[in-house]
Amino acid sequence: MTENGISVIALPRSGDIANRASLRRTNMGLILRHLRGHGARSRTQLSLELGLPKATVSNLVNELVERRLVREGDLERDGAIGRPRQAVHLDGATICGLGVEISVDYARTIALNLRGDLLLDRRITITPGQDSGAVLDAVAGLIHDALTGLRADGLDVTGVTVATPGEVDRASGTVLFAANMGWTHLPVIAGLLRRLPQPTPPITLANDTKLGAIAEYMLAAPHGIHDLIYLTGDVGVGAGIIADGKPLLGAAGIAGEVGHMPLDLAGYPCACGRSGCWETMIGLNALMRHAADPDDPVCDPTRDLEDRIADIRARADAGDERTLAALDRIAHGLGLGIGLLIDVLNPRAVIVGGYFALLSDYLLTTTRRIVNERVMAPRAGGCEVLTSTLGFTSAARGGAHAALDAVFDDPGSFTAPLRGSR
Amino acid sequence: MTENGISVIALPRSGDIANRASLRRTNMGLILRHLRGHGARSRTQLSLELGLPKATVSNLVNELVERRLVREGDLERDGAIGRPRQAVHLDGATICGLGVEISVDYARTIALNLRGDLLLDRRITITPGQDSGAVLDAVAGLIHDALTGLRADGLDVTGVTVATPGEVDRASGTVLFAANMGWTHLPVIAGLLRRLPQPTPPITLANDTKLGAIAEYMLAAPHGIHDLIYLTGDVGVGAGIIADGKPLLGAAGIAGEVGHMPLDLAGYPCACGRSGCWETMIGLNALMRHAADPDDPVCDPTRDLEDRIADIRARADAGDERTLAALDRIAHGLGLGIGLLIDVLNPRAVIVGGYFALLSDYLLTTTRRIVNERVMAPRAGGCEVLTSTLGFTSAARGGAHAALDAVFDDPGSFTAPLRGSR
Repeated sequence: MTENGISVIALPRSGDIANRASLRRTNMGLILRHLRGHGARSRTQLSLELGLPKATVSNLVNELVERRLVREGDLERDGAIGRPRQAVHLDGATICGLGVEISVDYARTIALNLRGDLLLDRRITITPGQDSGAVLDAVAGLIHDALTGLRADGLDVTGVTVATPGEVDRASGTVLFAANMGWTHLPVIAGLLRRLPQPTPPITLANDTKLGAIAEYMLAAPHGIHDLIYLTGDVGVGAGIIADGKPLLGAAGIAGEVGHMPLDLAGYPCACGRSGCWETMIGLNALMRHAADPDDPVCDPTRDLEDRIADIRARADAGDERTLAALDRIAHGLGLGIGLLIDVLNPRAVIVGGYFALLSDYLLTTTRRIVNERVMAPRAGGCEVLTSTLGFTSAARGGAHAALDAVFDDPGSFTAPLRGSR
Repeated sequence: MTENGISVIALPRSGDIANRASLRRTNMGLILRHLRGHGARSRTQLSLELGLPKATVSNLVNELVERRLVREGDLERDGAIGRPRQAVHLDGATICGLGVEISVDYARTIALNLRGDLLLDRRITITPGQDSGAVLDAVAGLIHDALTGLRADGLDVTGVTVATPGEVDRASGTVLFAANMGWTHLPVIAGLLRRLPQPTPPITLANDTKLGAIAEYMLAAPHGIHDLIYLTGDVGVGAGIIADGKPLLGAAGIAGEVGHMPLDLAGYPCACGRSGCWETMIGLNALMRHAADPDDPVCDPTRDLEDRIADIRARADAGDERTLAALDRIAHGLGLGIGLLIDVLNPRAVIVGGYFALLSDYLLTTTRRIVNERVMAPRAGGCEVLTSTLGFTSAARGGAHAALDAVFDDPGSFTAPLRGSR
């Protein structure tokens, strides 16, 4: 395969390739992924778009229908004449993944079924600074409630993916380091399994921002966007990168550590001990430092982030000059770093989440101008700077998508339960 | 497929997947790539490592042997007892790719056969500032000589890949913009085809730094390095990125534009019209500005780069304080930007080429210290900063590798000629 004149020269890893025995499974997964990414398709379209013989597609679709992972229904007419073509739709209404986000001051569960319907969205408050055992108690309770409820509704939960901030080790299910949680080498998955009645679906751990990027990509892919950066910000700033349709993880799985890019050498000291990190220019503390005096209630870290941002917004709406100047500084810093990331990664979209999304109407006009000034390629290399529409649900949503991966990898091992079968 | 807790959720593109008809071809290519990346392997090892049935592997290897793309020979003994196992080696000694680099002051052709042997390495001088027609005349002559010579030796040249600086459009074979060549919208491939007697092998165009990264990756992959950044520097600074074994190209194919990262806002004006770009801190002009007065011969841009760098080295060897201080500044700036790129991309290796490689013994101790100070993850996230050993051959070598891709993609369409068959 050759793209843009550069050979794609990935070396094969063991098991990468389908042998004949796994080809059927691989192709069923391809059909499911294609329907997720592009919407309903006729069998003929699937055959053309996937390069599979029509008889093969029909045969595979038949099995997927039997497993209730797809269903057949009418597609819109091609013009006025002729009968509507039968189309294959993603189904799996009764098979779902559960995403769980653990954050500093809340935990959230979101369940999505195979066709992407939101089945459950529940949030609980966590008191910041609690010991990790108490946090895991609360999160295990939340997961237990979710599993119990979903199962009572006759749903098959294929997996649970837990999102946390910080550096995580998937293999051991351990948070290696999460500064704002105060966690070091915390075996989150083992701790949750100990607290949950067995059996549970497989539970895995991943970084919240990386999962957020997956949730954003699910929305972007149908628009032909396969390279994106998802940027989150509150006190810290992080990025999840999708490159050519895949999460860019790096050699040790810790790519996207953008908060400490040295963008202002003469700048403000950072919590990391260095100075001039991007975080000191655009993190929440930078906004508060520019916008208010230290004893101002918006600077109170024990208050809810959304309330503090609402206060900032109210002042901006009232035309408060200090607030507007502070937002302008943040917008400039945001543009500078986003421009840099566009030069390095050449994405089709940068999607801002976190507090940037809450204030994007005040930020992005200036940010986009700076991006256009800084990026070497004309028109920012075709990149748009967009606002996330997922709010604080992206990590848990991404977790739910990730938990459904088992189905897309091996559809032949799953059959969606009939409604009322349990 | 799931890696590090993040689902690999690439949407299928048309033709991505092997149907039964193309499976044989795909698997033959996999075997070839596996041998290239990991060295000679027994049929049993290939079966285990690729997840293919042993009978399938044997059948495919037999065809590859018939096509002379692999050969069978002895592998080292497993301990003292037992007969040596028969091993499959990459062969294709008589089938080769031709890489062509066009640079400001030279052009170079390199031919590599399938097993990576260097068959040809020829360099001609180009007078900087010549009009593009004269440059293409010279390069076409160089390609013609190479093709004639290789064919006379009975070699099958599967393709030609031309490397140029700047932004290239593969589809049209056009250099869109290459500042130091003075080229804008120059149809390089059409220009070469017009000057070459037909037929020629397929000729494609790619960016020099991206191809250089491929050449470096070919050396790094057998050491288990699948994420790397190749950094080049003379007046400009550029990067080629390999992520999870594939070139990271970006949505428009222009990722790796690292020279204008804004790392010193209060800094020196850049040729791009902005200020404080990384290039102004570590590009050749920064070294010269720090090391010498403008009328010093080392600052003369009409002199050969390697001669100027040799002068700098002689002064450093003699302990000249200004030169050593200048190198220290460059090393600091290099560390700052490399640290940033490691935070963003988490590679296993950063490989410095260009003039950095020529002076790496004076630069990298300090650069590595700064990298370790700046990167958020301990021990730079496992990343090593290394010196390229390919000198000024990496772009042409990468081109030769890229030109051989057709064979790895579809081995069933190629048979290496017998020696003396032409």
